[in-house]
Amino acid sequence: MTSSVPKLFSGFAVEKPEKWQEPKLVQYEPRELWPTDITIKVKACGVCGSDCHQVSGNWGPFNRENLIVGHEIVGEVVEVGSEVTKHKLGDIVAIGAQSDSCGECTRCKSNNEQYCKHGIVGTYNSIHPKANGYVTQGGYASHFRVNAHFAASVPKNLDIHSAAPLLCGGLTVYSPIVRHAGHDLTGKTIGIVGIGGLGAMALQISKALGAKDVYAFSRSSAKKEDALKLGANHFIATGEDKEWTKSHEDSFDLILYCANSGKGADFNPYLDVLKLTGSFVTVSAPPIGELVSFQPFSLLSNGANVAGSGIGSMKEADELLKLYADKGLNVWIEKVPISEEGVKEVLTRGSKSDVRYRFVLTDFDKAFKAN
Amino acid sequence: MTSSVPKLFSGFAVEKPEKWQEPKLVQYEPRELWPTDITIKVKACGVCGSDCHQVSGNWGPFNRENLIVGHEIVGEVVEVGSEVTKHKLGDIVAIGAQSDSCGECTRCKSNNEQYCKHGIVGTYNSIHPKANGYVTQGGYASHFRVNAHFAASVPKNLDIHSAAPLLCGGLTVYSPIVRHAGHDLTGKTIGIVGIGGLGAMALQISKALGAKDVYAFSRSSAKKEDALKLGANHFIATGEDKEWTKSHEDSFDLILYCANSGKGADFNPYLDVLKLTGSFVTVSAPPIGELVSFQPFSLLSNGANVAGSGIGSMKEADELLKLYADKGLNVWIEKVPISEEGVKEVLTRGSKSDVRYRFVLTDFDKAFKAN
Repeated sequence: MTSSVPKLFSGFAVEKPEKWQEPKLVQYEPRELWPTDITIKVKACGVCGSDCHQVSGNWGPFNRENLIVGHEIVGEVVEVGSEVTKHKLGDIVAIGAQSDSCGECTRCKSNNEQYCKHGIVGTYNSIHPKANGYVTQGGYASHFRVNAHFAASVPKNLDIHSAAPLLCGGLTVYSPIVRHAGHDLTGKTIGIVGIGGLGAMALQISKALGAKDVYAFSRSSAKKEDALKLGANHFIATGEDKEWTKSHEDSFDLILYCANSGKGADFNPYLDVLKLTGSFVTVSAPPIGELVSFQPFSLLSNGANVAGSGIGSMKEADELLKLYADKGLNVWIEKVPISEEGVKEVLTRGSKSDVRYRFVLTDFDKAFKAN
Repeated sequence: MTSSVPKLFSGFAVEKPEKWQEPKLVQYEPRELWPTDITIKVKACGVCGSDCHQVSGNWGPFNRENLIVGHEIVGEVVEVGSEVTKHKLGDIVAIGAQSDSCGECTRCKSNNEQYCKHGIVGTYNSIHPKANGYVTQGGYASHFRVNAHFAASVPKNLDIHSAAPLLCGGLTVYSPIVRHAGHDLTGKTIGIVGIGGLGAMALQISKALGAKDVYAFSRSSAKKEDALKLGANHFIATGEDKEWTKSHEDSFDLILYCANSGKGADFNPYLDVLKLTGSFVTVSAPPIGELVSFQPFSLLSNGANVAGSGIGSMKEADELLKLYADKGLNVWIEKVPISEEGVKEVLTRGSKSDVRYRFVLTDFDKAFKAN
């Protein structure tokens, strides 16, 4: 326990979806500290596409006024509940898109807590079932309180600004890569579709895990040079080369679809180039109501496998942070000091994917001097 | 070699899609016998939904006039090419929806010839790449000539009228069951959606392979009694019980979608009840151009896996025939003597799924006396 934790936390909130471009500094009451919780003083927070979808109402209404988003949070532990053994005061930890789960079901007990069906709590805008309707607030804030299980340990040799985006964007691609293609990609061919925030990390991860061939797919050639630096050894501009499938049949162990939207996207070419035991996995989370569709014959004729994946487990988060630390990798980020203007900028540009390749909000100490 | 093979084969053909309800007895010239071929005298032919889709133009145009469909063919070997070792004169064999493949690629050489990308030849309406544009003719016919590899051996203790539908309908469900859930289903929970020809065989197969729980899903309760006799131990009428998913979350190792059409079908409830490592596999082959669609969040929130499967390998065909023989099973069929009227009846009623559960054309000897 420590006395440095204020009764009210501060953060940059959006009052309601209509006003998503007018973030304001507000104060709010956090939920009480439970014995399994830690409180952190935030030092950096990545900006996920989900933040932009959420504030603008794409993913449905706000569950509270003055919603604070942000779920790629890194900070220092400043308060520790009485039952916590995983972290101690002064530790640097990172939190992603999930802040709680039931902890009791077979999924929670088998490192699949991200698929818990009995009490998943999102890092923001979630009504916490154990906290009298408390609606969670995210990491564009001075402090963050969370079940200690959902905080990963940031290795000392990893830049905190890289750690932040790894906890949601990175984990979202790491989990399906290792679950569908394994932890050792030696000899394997991986395709990454959509070279945005997630795709950029997926290229780094695929190379770091030893893939023989890493293909970057993008509509144009604009990101070719970046993609090759990030880890791809092949680049296909699908908008420019309409014949690419012909020379790649039966090639891919895994194609990971990271593009912003499935709308109007044609999945069929990707299904056609999978190996027989390969998978096409989408982590794309478009606006609710937007459906993806495909021609069933493409599935039938290639025995193709289409899967989805939602974030990842905390075990996988720890693995991923260690991978970046061990390989000396850094996420490609653009830093923006947190402030009303800064949050407005990242949400506005983020909603247009105008970033290479991930925003990270910084300078929390300056913005939250009062705390 | 034998002299009993006529120069011209006879069969019941549809001249063109507009005339699909007017099948006529015609004669046609078969392709020449290759050293790897056998010729069979047909004794029975099942009626697949594909036959109805094909003759009515749902699957595109005819590649020849007077198309003869039918790809669940059982007959006696009456001619053997010089290089054939798999079958001999007098053997009873069965042929399904595939009559050739390249034979050389990794897929062909690994018992995955049904996914060959270099020369799959359908049993009917396929332009045979090695035969100067010859368009294959199916099994509503006096004789059938085929690469011997694509003829399975019918065990002596299996009724030939059961063997026929197993070669396409049965194999189409057997292959994804064993590939996605294994050959031993002990302890597993399998769901079969759509209790038509394929679904009925899928229930028998799931039980025969030892599944702990076999669920039959149908829109109404009309087929409940049949489904329980076929091998289900649970029945859910999805049109009557809208709340069924609530009590079945995290339950299914495999859900096999055998309904006629994905159009208007909602896959999401099935994705929601899969186990984390479970699969939803569709073998439904609707009219070309009909897309299936789903909400990506259903894939993401359950890590769900959606796969397609096309027919099966000849190794699997042999396994399946042996399974039915060993377990003393019979496919539930309705026999119709082959004739112009008989073929009209099965195509017409088949296109409305008005059969429990598979038509088998019989009495070929009577219809083809001249041969």
